[in-house]
Amino acid sequence: MQGNTQPAVTISAIASAAGVSVPTVSRVLNGRSDVAPATRERVEALLREYGYRRRGTAQPAPSGLVDLVFNDLDSPWAVEIIRGVEEALNAEDMSLVLSAIHRRGGADSTRRWLDALGARVSDGAILVTTDLDSFLHAELQRLNVPVVVVDPAGVPDLEVPTIGATNWTGAVTATEHLIQQNHRRIGFVAGRPGLWCSRARLDGYRAGLDAAGVAFDPELVINGDFDYSSGFAAGMELLTHPEPPTAIFAASDQMALGVYEAARQRGLRIPDDLSVVGFDDLPEAGWASPPLTTVHQPLSAMGSLAARTLVRLIRGESVESPRIEMSTALVQRSSVRALGS
Amino acid sequence: MQGNTQPAVTISAIASAAGVSVPTVSRVLNGRSDVAPATRERVEALLREYGYRRRGTAQPAPSGLVDLVFNDLDSPWAVEIIRGVEEALNAEDMSLVLSAIHRRGGADSTRRWLDALGARVSDGAILVTTDLDSFLHAELQRLNVPVVVVDPAGVPDLEVPTIGATNWTGAVTATEHLIQQNHRRIGFVAGRPGLWCSRARLDGYRAGLDAAGVAFDPELVINGDFDYSSGFAAGMELLTHPEPPTAIFAASDQMALGVYEAARQRGLRIPDDLSVVGFDDLPEAGWASPPLTTVHQPLSAMGSLAARTLVRLIRGESVESPRIEMSTALVQRSSVRALGS
Repeated sequence: MQGNTQPAVTISAIASAAGVSVPTVSRVLNGRSDVAPATRERVEALLREYGYRRRGTAQPAPSGLVDLVFNDLDSPWAVEIIRGVEEALNAEDMSLVLSAIHRRGGADSTRRWLDALGARVSDGAILVTTDLDSFLHAELQRLNVPVVVVDPAGVPDLEVPTIGATNWTGAVTATEHLIQQNHRRIGFVAGRPGLWCSRARLDGYRAGLDAAGVAFDPELVINGDFDYSSGFAAGMELLTHPEPPTAIFAASDQMALGVYEAARQRGLRIPDDLSVVGFDDLPEAGWASPPLTTVHQPLSAMGSLAARTLVRLIRGESVESPRIEMSTALVQRSSVRALGS
Repeated sequence: MQGNTQPAVTISAIASAAGVSVPTVSRVLNGRSDVAPATRERVEALLREYGYRRRGTAQPAPSGLVDLVFNDLDSPWAVEIIRGVEEALNAEDMSLVLSAIHRRGGADSTRRWLDALGARVSDGAILVTTDLDSFLHAELQRLNVPVVVVDPAGVPDLEVPTIGATNWTGAVTATEHLIQQNHRRIGFVAGRPGLWCSRARLDGYRAGLDAAGVAFDPELVINGDFDYSSGFAAGMELLTHPEPPTAIFAASDQMALGVYEAARQRGLRIPDDLSVVGFDDLPEAGWASPPLTTVHQPLSAMGSLAARTLVRLIRGESVESPRIEMSTALVQRSSVRALGS
């Protein structure tokens, strides 16, 4: 931080002088058309008069704000990531601005978030997203805002630092565990098609079978959508198979809970008649009846690491690796029993 | 908003001129001792030189930021409230700053949040808390920040606008439902003692029994702590009673899921051998096996209403009522069966 000889003019100060809101000034700066002509003229005159300079050309004082951005807040793991980010930022005396770029809002929603981001001069942004599109990426570069992506879905080739989890290894571990318990017909409920994490978990399941010499049976793999209802539907399909599986590995906890309900409706008890393993280790896994054996994904730690990585970028320090995958681990509870025991 | 003739000097501008961070300027303004004397002197000189005026004496432009504050982010309903607040603020082009005043951090954690709040000049704050202490309340008044409390716990006598839910009515409705299904021995797992919402739900349970002429049996009431493990323990106790209940009403969904596990360990099936009703209607209720009948608490709508109420306060408009309780409603799923059917 240089000791400037006079304070930088802020958007907030311009807004106050013009008698308009901060987002309005930001819209003018970003060349948006939805500003009344008279307002635009007044704001532009003040921007010239006070010599406003965009961030990146000036050296503004750090705002102490970091944006955390979700596509939508309806994901059950959102709160886990939020908690990790909040704790790490809190330790740095920084504050968390939480946003959802609502998918239903489309490009306009993204535009509005970018306007707000420009107006409040956040020090950086953490995106939790399965699809960082090129438009968003270009705009963030233009705003000169450091970015880290928390990426539970596992996109492997972003140009910004990303924090993920070892999806493939976690799926191998879960499959090996079921095989060690003498299961051979192991159903798999796959995640949403088209996401890297879905593919990684499916590949891990196949690798676990292959390592044990268990033949892969495509009829035992049903695609789900990560949610409860798709897990229920997949469970019903697997359990009506002429030669049904003795164990089902679901690529998310919610789908595993759907499998629980399918088993109940088929009159099967878990784990006596069917073993089930999930993936994520959300709090709900421990509240299931019986408590669910699952692959722990360190969502909160991923959030904390993303925040610490972003703080390094904000301070101009380098990061060790453009992508870090944090380790998953099997959490054994009560939903698996050894066959033949 | 008056059309001021020149921009107000901001803390950020002072920080930039002094070559220090924004929180440091805030510490100086708040009379904190943890600032180096030379830094304090330099900042104070700049504050005088540029004629900095605190918010409340000047008319700063709205920052477009609203603080949402939790005690801790480990509550399962936190994300529901966050979603409601975020959507309402998004519709107003405002942004959400999310903070946790960590209980384990104590007074220091509260102090740090207040410093940060003062530094970034939030337009207002929404507190989600079961205990707004007098220190915090006095400090918020001093900072001249409008406040609304989202209060799932039901504190009835705060001096600031509060948004709650009809805990008592919800418990009456759940109890009436079980009585209509011919249950007479209805166990109750109460919430954490000492909270108003716990008392309201217990009173509603008793009122429901009384209205139907069913005698209250104190042996059928076990205190819980709202969490899964306390529900499990209460369920085990109720189900080992010499004359066990045919239905259990738990004052939270998590405790109801604990009762599920107690029933499973006792070899009882839900709803065939035991009916269960919860309270909250978290997403988890729908993922239980069988899906849980429960009292819906409109957490997301409570968050939205809190945000809209705060926006009214920020704009200097009046609010209709210092306390609003939003209605609860019974959501019937598959965990209750009619006795004798």
